[in-house]
Amino acid sequence: MNEDESEEPGGATDANDAGSPGDDLTHTDERGEVQMVDVGAKPDTARRAVAAGEIHLSPGTVAAIRDDALSKGDVLATARIGAVQAVKHTWETIPMCHQIPITNVETAFAVEDDRVTAEVAVETTGKTGCEMEALEGVTTGLNVVWDMVKAAEKDADGQYPGTRIENVRVVSKEKRSL
Amino acid sequence: MNEDESEEPGGATDANDAGSPGDDLTHTDERGEVQMVDVGAKPDTARRAVAAGEIHLSPGTVAAIRDDALSKGDVLATARIGAVQAVKHTWETIPMCHQIPITNVETAFAVEDDRVTAEVAVETTGKTGCEMEALEGVTTGLNVVWDMVKAAEKDADGQYPGTRIENVRVVSKEKRSL
Amino acid sequence: MNEDESEEPGGATDANDAGSPGDDLTHTDERGEVQMVDVGAKPDTARRAVAAGEIHLSPGTVAAIRDDALSKGDVLATARIGAVQAVKHTWETIPMCHQIPITNVETAFAVEDDRVTAEVAVETTGKTGCEMEALEGVTTGLNVVWDMVKAAEKDADGQYPGTRIENVRVVSKEKRSL
Amino acid sequence: MNEDESEEPGGATDANDAGSPGDDLTHTDERGEVQMVDVGAKPDTARRAVAAGEIHLSPGTVAAIRDDALSKGDVLATARIGAVQAVKHTWETIPMCHQIPITNVETAFAVEDDRVTAEVAVETTGKTGCEMEALEGVTTGLNVVWDMVKAAEKDADGQYPGTRIENVRVVSKEKRSL
Amino acid sequence: MNEDESEEPGGATDANDAGSPGDDLTHTDERGEVQMVDVGAKPDTARRAVAAGEIHLSPGTVAAIRDDALSKGDVLATARIGAVQAVKHTWETIPMCHQIPITNVETAFAVEDDRVTAEVAVETTGKTGCEMEALEGVTTGLNVVWDMVKAAEKDADGQYPGTRIENVRVVSKEKRSL
Amino acid sequence: MNEDESEEPGGATDANDAGSPGDDLTHTDERGEVQMVDVGAKPDTARRAVAAGEIHLSPGTVAAIRDDALSKGDVLATARIGAVQAVKHTWETIPMCHQIPITNVETAFAVEDDRVTAEVAVETTGKTGCEMEALEGVTTGLNVVWDMVKAAEKDADGQYPGTRIENVRVVSKEKRSL
Repeated sequence: MNEDESEEPGGATDANDAGSPGDDLTHTDERGEVQMVDVGAKPDTARRAVAAGEIHLSPGTVAAIRDDALSKGDVLATARIGAVQAVKHTWETIPMCHQIPITNVETAFAVEDDRVTAEVAVETTGKTGCEMEALEGVTTGLNVVWDMVKAAEKDADGQYPGTRIENVRVVSKEKRSL
Repeated sequence: MNEDESEEPGGATDANDAGSPGDDLTHTDERGEVQMVDVGAKPDTARRAVAAGEIHLSPGTVAAIRDDALSKGDVLATARIGAVQAVKHTWETIPMCHQIPITNVETAFAVEDDRVTAEVAVETTGKTGCEMEALEGVTTGLNVVWDMVKAAEKDADGQYPGTRIENVRVVSKEKRSL
Repeated sequence: MNEDESEEPGGATDANDAGSPGDDLTHTDERGEVQMVDVGAKPDTARRAVAAGEIHLSPGTVAAIRDDALSKGDVLATARIGAVQAVKHTWETIPMCHQIPITNVETAFAVEDDRVTAEVAVETTGKTGCEMEALEGVTTGLNVVWDMVKAAEKDADGQYPGTRIENVRVVSKEKRSL
Repeated sequence: MNEDESEEPGGATDANDAGSPGDDLTHTDERGEVQMVDVGAKPDTARRAVAAGEIHLSPGTVAAIRDDALSKGDVLATARIGAVQAVKHTWETIPMCHQIPITNVETAFAVEDDRVTAEVAVETTGKTGCEMEALEGVTTGLNVVWDMVKAAEKDADGQYPGTRIENVRVVSKEKRSL
Repeated sequence: MNEDESEEPGGATDANDAGSPGDDLTHTDERGEVQMVDVGAKPDTARRAVAAGEIHLSPGTVAAIRDDALSKGDVLATARIGAVQAVKHTWETIPMCHQIPITNVETAFAVEDDRVTAEVAVETTGKTGCEMEALEGVTTGLNVVWDMVKAAEKDADGQYPGTRIENVRVVSKEKRSL
Repeated sequence: MNEDESEEPGGATDANDAGSPGDDLTHTDERGEVQMVDVGAKPDTARRAVAAGEIHLSPGTVAAIRDDALSKGDVLATARIGAVQAVKHTWETIPMCHQIPITNVETAFAVEDDRVTAEVAVETTGKTGCEMEALEGVTTGLNVVWDMVKAAEKDADGQYPGTRIENVRVVSKEKRSL
């Protein structure tokens, strides 16, 4: 139970509120105007957020990635680097996000029979959470995979009938005092 | 049928190949090393790519976005701007993408009963396609929506049990000579 | 009286100096060479700076913005977002500025009969002030307004005879110990 | 008379319209939603825009800048570089601006008795105008001057009672066929 | 012999001048003020520049990179990606550089007994050369290698007594009409 | 002896290890996959790193820089600014670097008979070192010098037979408790 998440009043204002989502929007004020959230009075805490998602690919593409992974591995290396860079750039990608000091990023890409899965964990010591950073890492990491396999995934008309990014979610979000 | 997609040999090398995806990876060379694709010899053509996706939200959050949309509308305005900016930044987000002159971006966000859908169309006059730009617009636009409704979507433990980005896909990809 | 503003020796070195501006330039050393200011030995303090300015527009343009504000409001929403992003990018826009952790940004745009006014407040917890961030927010926010009303403001020759950004100033600058 | 400025319908839709500003907002569509302008069908033309503005300073500060200009000159050199960089970054600073190929930037800063004036000319060969680029160059260039003279301009309370950026305007905007 | 390099008058103003370098500075005007070069009147040409350099490392570090290259190869993959990204960012890294459309980047890193060598080729179709892009690719690529082997290269006092980047040069620079 | 450099285990794991470089690579994990280093558990310390390097130039070019330095000095002012900006951008240039709060940057460029030397000192208060920031400042600063003297350095064929960046090194690296 994260009782002092003043940035995110939804479930946090009252423990009895569990299960009933709040109805306030985080980044708009009482006039409906978009705003940054004031985090100046919040203490520094250690935060960790993990997000995950997957890209569905044709069997031929998965085989090509596996071949590459067995030899050089640059496809997944590029996705890992793209994910880390996206995490660090979240403050400019997501307009109302704060600049926070990222202390750790862990990326895990796995090649399954009909998809590549991505999991990105982000840690920070600061005044606000880092789930947006983890989500940006996942979606950009999966987009990088897409970019790397464009030739293999396209059909004869240059379209992508089967390629899909699915199931992008926040796996967990933790906070502990310093 | 886009017969001269030399960047993307998958379906393009042979028209008879329709339906059978190629097995080459776009951005790795014969040694498996990551590389940019040489587009210097390709003619300028008019390109358009449309991508789409959706974020599943709780009914309470959807109601809050609708209230906001009826009054100020800053939630979706922020998502539209985030999507346009993400389109323009694709060359630095996706490591192997080229800098291309974007001539048009159209964004359409729709609020449905249990989700917000996003569609982003990108047009360019250049030597390479723009589906990665459209995909970046969609995934970042949906992440911005997530960021704007964090308070409403979180449960009492600060988690997002029902929030999901799903069905991110390339709707269409076109090219015509100038 | 901010007695320990070692970064900014002008009025601060001596209280008797009030009213007589200092003659040192902040970012050039004794040889006249541009330099960053060393803030490593300065304690973290809570800072707030407010800047303001205005853009003069034709009555027809003001009416169009009011119509838009009554319905969707995307003109001013875009300006608000542009201002927030400019605040966060000041460290790269102004060459000698430090990267500082912005904890809060408040933007207020008001539509008057012949102008739009902008006020941007920035707060940080750090080793240096944030008036440059507030000024960047104001000037970029006003430039975004200009960009959004280009069609309405231009005369038949494509010129802007009456459009002006005026009165850009620092309204206040505060500092308090943590 | 620039008759084909389809991006900017204000004065351009009708030559008889001279003097009566249009009432359409450039970057919002019929639903009031913010949008980029489609420039794909526009021919490449040679464009030049000149913007100007000034920063009012105390006599002591002006004297300090003149001293610096006589020796090293890094104050104005930094402002020139900041202006050029701001011109090149306009596509990311102003949300709805296109990425355009800047072919030339000219900056002129002049030190007068109670102010520094800035004029920035921008040239491009492309599908859309460059007055926003020139305006960004002027306002950022003047903000850089402010940053460089903070110590000299502040009073004993750390405030800026007399510092002002004024009269930011588009001096001229030209277009000619290639 | 590149006779029309008006941007770079050094050797180009006169063919008889071969061997005697010019004495003009590219980016300062007659008053010594820094400026961008006007390339608006220059025709589009196909350009290619190749730069190279090397980082000297201890034998133990070279062995570690070779081990990595035999298995995953992420050290050199990261350097390749860093080099490509640096090429694309040159317009903001080098203040007076233009934004140019990069059509191709080729990177080649080789592991020798006591060093890693880097060669970066850049191609563009535009109005100005791309040797600065190639140089930025080489120096950043080598810095990325340094970053990846910090642990192996440091001595017991945390210093780098033997690590050196050397011999950074432009290997060739070509231009041909379109 | 910096005994707690857990980020950089090379020489630091054991004082007896002095002189024998470690064999671990900093940014790859046990599977050889590129990763950021977790610095969350490290205390904030005051860090300083100094890097240096030089660019070899023809005597005519050196004379032109000296002339410029005697009058306006914009060549070296531009290099100083480029170096400071490169220091601040290291977190995005070097993929696995953290965003750290730079508290001070000192740049020193010296014009010698056949070269320009650069030394860049960087200070931070944080959880990780700043030698990569200092190296980026040096290499980019020297590349800026190259860019500014392109006309003077090129021979009649547009090549750079004698221009070289050499001897880029970390001069010192210090850490002290707060």
